[in-house]
Amino acid sequence: MQASPAITAQQVPIALGDRAYNILIGQALIGDAATWADLPVAHAALIVTNDTVAPLYAARLRTQLASRHAVVHQVTLPDGEEHKTWQTLNLIFDGLLSNGCDRKTVIYALGGGVVGDMAGFAAASYMRGVPFVQVPTTLLAQVDSSVGGKTAINHPLGKNMIGAFYQPQRVVCDLDTLTTLPARELSAGLAEVIKYGPIADMAFLDWIEANMAALLAREPAALAHAVRRSCEIKAWVVGQDEREAGLRAILNFGHTFGHAIESGLGYGEWLHGEAVGCGMVMATQLSLRLGLVDAAFADRLTALIGAAGLPLKGPRLGAARYMELMRVDKKAEAGEIRFVVIDGPGRAAMRAAPDALVAEVIDACCA
Amino acid sequence: MQASPAITAQQVPIALGDRAYNILIGQALIGDAATWADLPVAHAALIVTNDTVAPLYAARLRTQLASRHAVVHQVTLPDGEEHKTWQTLNLIFDGLLSNGCDRKTVIYALGGGVVGDMAGFAAASYMRGVPFVQVPTTLLAQVDSSVGGKTAINHPLGKNMIGAFYQPQRVVCDLDTLTTLPARELSAGLAEVIKYGPIADMAFLDWIEANMAALLAREPAALAHAVRRSCEIKAWVVGQDEREAGLRAILNFGHTFGHAIESGLGYGEWLHGEAVGCGMVMATQLSLRLGLVDAAFADRLTALIGAAGLPLKGPRLGAARYMELMRVDKKAEAGEIRFVVIDGPGRAAMRAAPDALVAEVIDACCA
Repeated sequence: MQASPAITAQQVPIALGDRAYNILIGQALIGDAATWADLPVAHAALIVTNDTVAPLYAARLRTQLASRHAVVHQVTLPDGEEHKTWQTLNLIFDGLLSNGCDRKTVIYALGGGVVGDMAGFAAASYMRGVPFVQVPTTLLAQVDSSVGGKTAINHPLGKNMIGAFYQPQRVVCDLDTLTTLPARELSAGLAEVIKYGPIADMAFLDWIEANMAALLAREPAALAHAVRRSCEIKAWVVGQDEREAGLRAILNFGHTFGHAIESGLGYGEWLHGEAVGCGMVMATQLSLRLGLVDAAFADRLTALIGAAGLPLKGPRLGAARYMELMRVDKKAEAGEIRFVVIDGPGRAAMRAAPDALVAEVIDACCA
Repeated sequence: MQASPAITAQQVPIALGDRAYNILIGQALIGDAATWADLPVAHAALIVTNDTVAPLYAARLRTQLASRHAVVHQVTLPDGEEHKTWQTLNLIFDGLLSNGCDRKTVIYALGGGVVGDMAGFAAASYMRGVPFVQVPTTLLAQVDSSVGGKTAINHPLGKNMIGAFYQPQRVVCDLDTLTTLPARELSAGLAEVIKYGPIADMAFLDWIEANMAALLAREPAALAHAVRRSCEIKAWVVGQDEREAGLRAILNFGHTFGHAIESGLGYGEWLHGEAVGCGMVMATQLSLRLGLVDAAFADRLTALIGAAGLPLKGPRLGAARYMELMRVDKKAEAGEIRFVVIDGPGRAAMRAAPDALVAEVIDACCA
């Protein structure tokens, strides 16, 4: 018998008109029938997961889905960012078609950001769109990638270059899944949690600083607050700018440098959150050199990223290679790289910057 | 110097709120600067075309686009339905990324249905969506596939299984491109023209019968009317049901049997329009055996399909194989095939049908 949850389950609504949905946050959610109530009814479900997560949580999810769907299929992908490719995506399409899944089939993404991005893009594209549900099992996916409808796969020439804006029916953040998360993955998730402070909410940054030890110790109450506040901020941004016409780009703080690290080293070498953490250090240095923040702010943010167990120095790819990789960033226009910078504490902005200054930042931040 | 057009250019609006656009129909449109006015401004354009169409019309389009975009790239795909695959789609992504195309880049689809479907899906997916313009150069693409935002690629297990609903910025139907169309392609296009009669407009069916000779002789006035009326009917249907929740499925009259022919024989063996023509004969026979239309109606429609130069007998794949192929149709639900039938002249409906009856139709219609 399962102990009753210590944390009251919470909901964060994403207000997107006829694409509105809720994020559920709590303990023991996967095994609770109420979690799945009111989701689309269909003959078939397909669980997309990976070979790390499947042995831990797939049976628990299957048990619940078996009472809602006549058949529950499963596709288990290899784990890791290096598999976020068309070849792996095709395994999902093969599973859907070989099992005769129709256009009402509900896809459940059970895993981290890679599973969510691929299952989401498969759901967006299979028969031009079937419903899907996000069941993120990593901190990074719970606080960021599962929310807001961005789905994608990588291309050898750029990260997340092929995808769709496609909203899930629900996001189920079961905090219990974080108990099995490797420490390195926990730190990677904290990078995206920290992100929300400097771009939008300095009070949240204060809270993260004060609670970093509790977060690293995986105290449920601390994790619950971190996930909820992160989702609230993301919901607020996405509700105003679903398709990233402007504001939404601030969520990419640290990602321009970070994506360059990921694709420059080869996907999977660094975790996405590790690259984002280090990318935030670099973007903060850029903000400092542009005169937008002071040294005390930059030092404080860098220290917090370090306290989360994240690398503070980027790999030595050389400034020229960084620049080349960043020019294919989705925010670039006509070859001009555009950075998310901190425009004063708690406020982000988009900016181009002189190449020489960016190169200076890269040289200073790589070891 | 180009002779002045004999046919007045016309516009058919597609009413889809903030995704609304116009279909332009006329002669000498590609070479007319007014055709391209008011389209999105961007540093780069990418023309997607195929190796049959490129030598005929790409230069004409490039000349126009060169005055609107600083750089105009081109990706030339191999021609044919058998190339509507992920591998070929990737050539478009490779072209976009290797040329550093950003998220404002406008994609121009210059070719038939295969080019339009692939360029459209690439536009829907590249950086999660860039603007695109359809420039259909076949009758089939002008009257059907370029309009309404359905984009897709094939999967070995089913046709158009992976794709997106993604609307173009404009559709440019230059009737002059039909002068270079092979006769077999013209007939294939007429299948989709004929389709609009039995499902929606018997007066249009009368007109097609009366003007079949003029259509086969490619008289501009006849082609202009066929394209315009087809687009009007399609616009009316798509304006009510963009994502095929119901009504839009009637546009798939003949397609359930037709897709089975295409994937059963191997993509590219029959042209899509040929398979649809024959599929309409089969769907009409099914409607007859369900008591929905009389023999005179079935004979009349079959004769018209034959007069267009289309095959009336399907390949002998065997009823069991047809049934198996049709069960992966996008309209199927929980393994039950759903057919678009004619529910009285000028009116279509969706229906399941007893397997034995469907097998009877297949046996009667294959040679």
